[in-house]
Amino acid sequence: MPETPAPQTLRTLAELREHLRRFAQARDWDQFHSPKNLAMALIAEAAELVEHFQWLTEKQSAELPPEKRAAVADELADVLLYLVRIADKLDLDLLAEAERKLADNERRYPVEKARGSAKKYTEL
Amino acid sequence: MPETPAPQTLRTLAELREHLRRFAQARDWDQFHSPKNLAMALIAEAAELVEHFQWLTEKQSAELPPEKRAAVADELADVLLYLVRIADKLDLDLLAEAERKLADNERRYPVEKARGSAKKYTEL
Amino acid sequence: MPETPAPQTLRTLAELREHLRRFAQARDWDQFHSPKNLAMALIAEAAELVEHFQWLTEKQSAELPPEKRAAVADELADVLLYLVRIADKLDLDLLAEAERKLADNERRYPVEKARGSAKKYTEL
Amino acid sequence: MPETPAPQTLRTLAELREHLRRFAQARDWDQFHSPKNLAMALIAEAAELVEHFQWLTEKQSAELPPEKRAAVADELADVLLYLVRIADKLDLDLLAEAERKLADNERRYPVEKARGSAKKYTEL
Repeated sequence: MPETPAPQTLRTLAELREHLRRFAQARDWDQFHSPKNLAMALIAEAAELVEHFQWLTEKQSAELPPEKRAAVADELADVLLYLVRIADKLDLDLLAEAERKLADNERRYPVEKARGSAKKYTEL
Repeated sequence: MPETPAPQTLRTLAELREHLRRFAQARDWDQFHSPKNLAMALIAEAAELVEHFQWLTEKQSAELPPEKRAAVADELADVLLYLVRIADKLDLDLLAEAERKLADNERRYPVEKARGSAKKYTEL
Repeated sequence: MPETPAPQTLRTLAELREHLRRFAQARDWDQFHSPKNLAMALIAEAAELVEHFQWLTEKQSAELPPEKRAAVADELADVLLYLVRIADKLDLDLLAEAERKLADNERRYPVEKARGSAKKYTEL
Repeated sequence: MPETPAPQTLRTLAELREHLRRFAQARDWDQFHSPKNLAMALIAEAAELVEHFQWLTEKQSAELPPEKRAAVADELADVLLYLVRIADKLDLDLLAEAERKLADNERRYPVEKARGSAKKYTEL
C-alpha cells in the first residue's frame, strides 16, 4: 500500500500542502527542505519556465504549440509545489499573503495613475 | 468608486485569478502581460526570495525573525500572483497541473528508493 | 591606509579575482562565501538584470536610455563579480572553461544546421 | 573550412567577445540576441548553477567531486558567455564596469563596519 496516495482531486492549496507534507515525510526529505534550499529549488524551476520563452517573441509566448504548452504547465506546477512547501515550512498562509498584497497593489497602482504604464509604483 | 475592489476574503486560486484579471484590465496592462514577460517578472520575484536567504545558514532560514519573515511572505505572494497570472494567460488550471505533477513524482520517487536521498529521479 | 585599495586599472579577470579575494579577506567574509551562497547571490543579481527588461520590448531593450543603461551595467558588473568569486572558490579558470565551452558549441551548432534557428542542439 | 574557428587560447574577455560575435553572425543569431532575450538566457544558466547546489550543505558545495565540479564549471562558462554577449550588445566594457563597482563597494563596505557582517550596505 503506497504511503502517500495521490489525492483523488486536489481542490485547495491546503490539500496540496498536506499532500506535499506527507510526501516529504514518507521519504525523510524534511532534512533537505530548509526554506533556503527550497527557495533555490523554486528559482531553478522558475528558470526552466523562463528558458521555454527566451527565444520566443512575446506573441509566440502567448500561442504555444500543445507540446510546449504542456512543458510550460509542468514548470508552473513545479513552482507552485515549492511555493506551497516554503510557505508551509514558514507557517505562512499563501492566500492570506496574496490578499494582503492585492490590497498593497491597489494602493500603489491607482487606476488613474497606472493605466497603460509599466512603471514601478516607486516611479509613478 | 474603485474599479477593482480588494476581495473580502480570498478563498481559492480561482478567485485570485479573477481579481488579477480585473486588476490588469482596469489598468490596461494586458499589453505587457505576455507569458514571456510574466515569466521574467516571476523569476525576478523568486530572486528577491532567494536574496533573503543567501547569507543565512539553513537553520537560520527556518527561524526567521518577524520582520524578515514578513518580507519573505511578501515575496512568496508576489511569486504566487505572477504564477496565477501566467497560468490564466495560457488557460491552464494550476491545481490540476499540480495534481498531475504529484502523480509523476509518486512514480519517479518511490518511497523505498528515495528515502533519505536528495538524488534526482534520473539518478535513482 | 585602506587594506584593499581599488586597483589602478583592472586589465584581466585574474586581477579582478585577486582584488575580490583581498576584499573578502579584509572583511572576514570568506565564512559566507561558500559556492552555494555565492550561486544564490549571483542569481539574485541576474534577476535584477532581468527586472530591467521585463516590461520592455526586445527593441527597447537594445536602445536603453543612459540612466537605464548605467543601471544595467551595474547589474552586469555584479554578476561578473560573483562569477569570478565562485570560480576562485572552486579553483576554476573561467577563460579556460569558456574556451572549452566554445569548442563544445562549435560541435553542437554547426553553421549549416543552426543558421537562423533558435533550437537547442538537442533538437537540431 | 569552419567559419568560426575555436581560438587557440583565449586570453582576454575582449577575445571572447570577438569570438562570440563571429559565432552569432555566422549562424544569423543576432535576430534572437536582444539584451532582453540574452538576460533570460543568462538567468536560465545561473539557475542551472543553483540547481547543482540546492540540496548540498555549504561545506559540500565547497568540496565537489570531480564530475560535479566539471558540471558546475560548465554552467559558469555559460553564464560568462551570455554576460559577455549582453555587454557587447549594449556596448559596455565589463572590466571597466567591474572596476567602477569595486570602488562603490569599497565605499559602501568600509572594513571596520563590514567585518564579519553579512548585512547589506543599506543596513550597515
